[in-house]
Amino acid sequence: MSTHAPQDSSSGTLSYEQAGVNYDLIDPLKVSAQRAAAATAGHLSAHGFTEVKASRGESAYVVDVGPFYIASIVECLGSKALVADEMATLTGKSYYDGIAQDTIAMAVNDLITVGATPLVVQAYWAAGGSDWFGDAQRAQALVAGWKKACDTCQVAWGGGETPALAGIVEAGRIDLAASCTGLINPKERLSVGDKLADGDAIVLLASSGIHANGLSLARKLIERLPQGYLTEVQPGLTYGDALLAPTTLYSPVTEALYKAGITPHYCANITGHGWRKLLRHPGKFTYRIHTVPPVTPVLKFIQQHAQQDDREAYSTLNMGAGFALFVKADQAAKVVEISKACGIDAWVAGAVEAGEKQLLIEPLNIRFGDDDLQLR
Amino acid sequence: MSTHAPQDSSSGTLSYEQAGVNYDLIDPLKVSAQRAAAATAGHLSAHGFTEVKASRGESAYVVDVGPFYIASIVECLGSKALVADEMATLTGKSYYDGIAQDTIAMAVNDLITVGATPLVVQAYWAAGGSDWFGDAQRAQALVAGWKKACDTCQVAWGGGETPALAGIVEAGRIDLAASCTGLINPKERLSVGDKLADGDAIVLLASSGIHANGLSLARKLIERLPQGYLTEVQPGLTYGDALLAPTTLYSPVTEALYKAGITPHYCANITGHGWRKLLRHPGKFTYRIHTVPPVTPVLKFIQQHAQQDDREAYSTLNMGAGFALFVKADQAAKVVEISKACGIDAWVAGAVEAGEKQLLIEPLNIRFGDDDLQLR
Repeated sequence: MSTHAPQDSSSGTLSYEQAGVNYDLIDPLKVSAQRAAAATAGHLSAHGFTEVKASRGESAYVVDVGPFYIASIVECLGSKALVADEMATLTGKSYYDGIAQDTIAMAVNDLITVGATPLVVQAYWAAGGSDWFGDAQRAQALVAGWKKACDTCQVAWGGGETPALAGIVEAGRIDLAASCTGLINPKERLSVGDKLADGDAIVLLASSGIHANGLSLARKLIERLPQGYLTEVQPGLTYGDALLAPTTLYSPVTEALYKAGITPHYCANITGHGWRKLLRHPGKFTYRIHTVPPVTPVLKFIQQHAQQDDREAYSTLNMGAGFALFVKADQAAKVVEISKACGIDAWVAGAVEAGEKQLLIEPLNIRFGDDDLQLR
Repeated sequence: MSTHAPQDSSSGTLSYEQAGVNYDLIDPLKVSAQRAAAATAGHLSAHGFTEVKASRGESAYVVDVGPFYIASIVECLGSKALVADEMATLTGKSYYDGIAQDTIAMAVNDLITVGATPLVVQAYWAAGGSDWFGDAQRAQALVAGWKKACDTCQVAWGGGETPALAGIVEAGRIDLAASCTGLINPKERLSVGDKLADGDAIVLLASSGIHANGLSLARKLIERLPQGYLTEVQPGLTYGDALLAPTTLYSPVTEALYKAGITPHYCANITGHGWRKLLRHPGKFTYRIHTVPPVTPVLKFIQQHAQQDDREAYSTLNMGAGFALFVKADQAAKVVEISKACGIDAWVAGAVEAGEKQLLIEPLNIRFGDDDLQLR
């Protein structure tokens, strides 16, 4: 059982666990589910196929079906919709077009890490009751935003589920998720880590803000803000509006890289666990960061008000970098150029070195070791 | 807006809408989502692929990727977990192994209707808080049941999401869904309706009980039962236990049919809307039923206590038939034999005829017309 007692969070450092997520309770289930899941891989042979074992523990699951690989995933938005609901009450606006993009980004940005082209997205919109869908403005914003994100990623929206789940989902709320299926085609595009090597460059792609991770912390923080979500992060931009900037969709970049003949050696979607996700690769490498992207204003604001030092902030939030590409050093400048051409700022931020498993963020004098990220 | 006022449901006929699901509010969103989704199909051409247009409106979405078709889907369990929670309180048992099977069945039984072999299942387990996962007995039952259902269907469990969604999912509850990706391979297995013809036989496969549709009604009914979920449906079997019989998984049957050289002309998963799902095919045919399977005791019990006539019951519940296969008449007896060999009872129940779009359940003198099912 948990040893985390409720604490006064009105002052002092606000950590992620104080914000209400207790991994001690979830992790044993995760481990046993991962073991049971791994034990089902053999079923594919009955159909003439095999799993790509290295994809277990990666962000998407990959199956070898002969002419190409199939990748698939289901991803949850998380609690960002609660911010949209609060802001709708405060401003009268609907933010569900952006929320739709966030939800698709959660799935698509994970799927592309293994080298997949996203092909089909399915919508999972589970409302707390039929009346959720009776707010036509909000419902239409959700539909329009979902369509627009599919357009950006050039995926087909296959269909989905719109259940009314009174008694399971809270009244007036909606549980949003997306599943995504894609192909790794040609098979050389597969990036599950075997190509990562000493000397590779680390290219970081800009985030648009908090994306959809760290929202429990961000929501908790409003207790400290005199004007709550309407507190200004910078002149003319409220905290709520800043939080609700839709998550950047990175698949246009990975597709453009392929067209330019560049296959990343590895990719990391920087979500929960912040920059510790740069340690995701199972191998033993040192990741040395020499350039830190500018911190998005809303993230700087959160760090400041949560009184987090840099180490805590970079271990929780994306701090301006939403996606990492590990590429051949001589391709790094071209990757930056291609990303910028897609409208997404990018930086050659560091290098992969043989050596102890660690992430060194040199400009900030931060080190994360192997113990700081346990995903497998 | 809705015109449905709350009604006293302590006596008289209990309909599905009285049980709390109001399709008038959900349907406009569904229609606009379906239109927006259909408008994204062209994106597949950027990747060299095309959608199977006839799969829009079917139970799974199908894309032609050249050597085979890919089918994908996401499906929600619905409110059956609420019955499991109540029964756990009453009996001390965990029913989540069966609930896991129900959830997978919702996805797999839909996916196979288009001729697909399910390959990968992803788990979506969104709890009302981290503490849901702290009940180790329940969590392990969910994992074990999920694994077992994957074994039965010979699918690989790829991974999934286990978010803690306090504020969105109710405390102590869990929102369960599954996504599934499969292949239609060889492509001749595709069954999206073009092969259905005058003279085809309708084979019905037995259900195990209520499956996972009609639970809102079934839960509402306990207000009328003096012992609630512990009321006996038959000696030694409580209403709660009977409701919680796990949904039958039909993919072993469709795979065995393929191995026997039988390709159904069409399939219908009999879920929401009960037997009206037999009218799902977009064409103009008369479906004449001459043999009605025995009604599962729990469904007979629900019909009786909800005071529904046969027409209402067959329009809402599966009434003993969980899946329909439309096959060549001379293959029907073989289909029954193969299903029975898989442990699932089956009946040659009727025939497809050219003519007005209608379902005639002759032994019960029931007719459903085109107006009785509007899914597209």
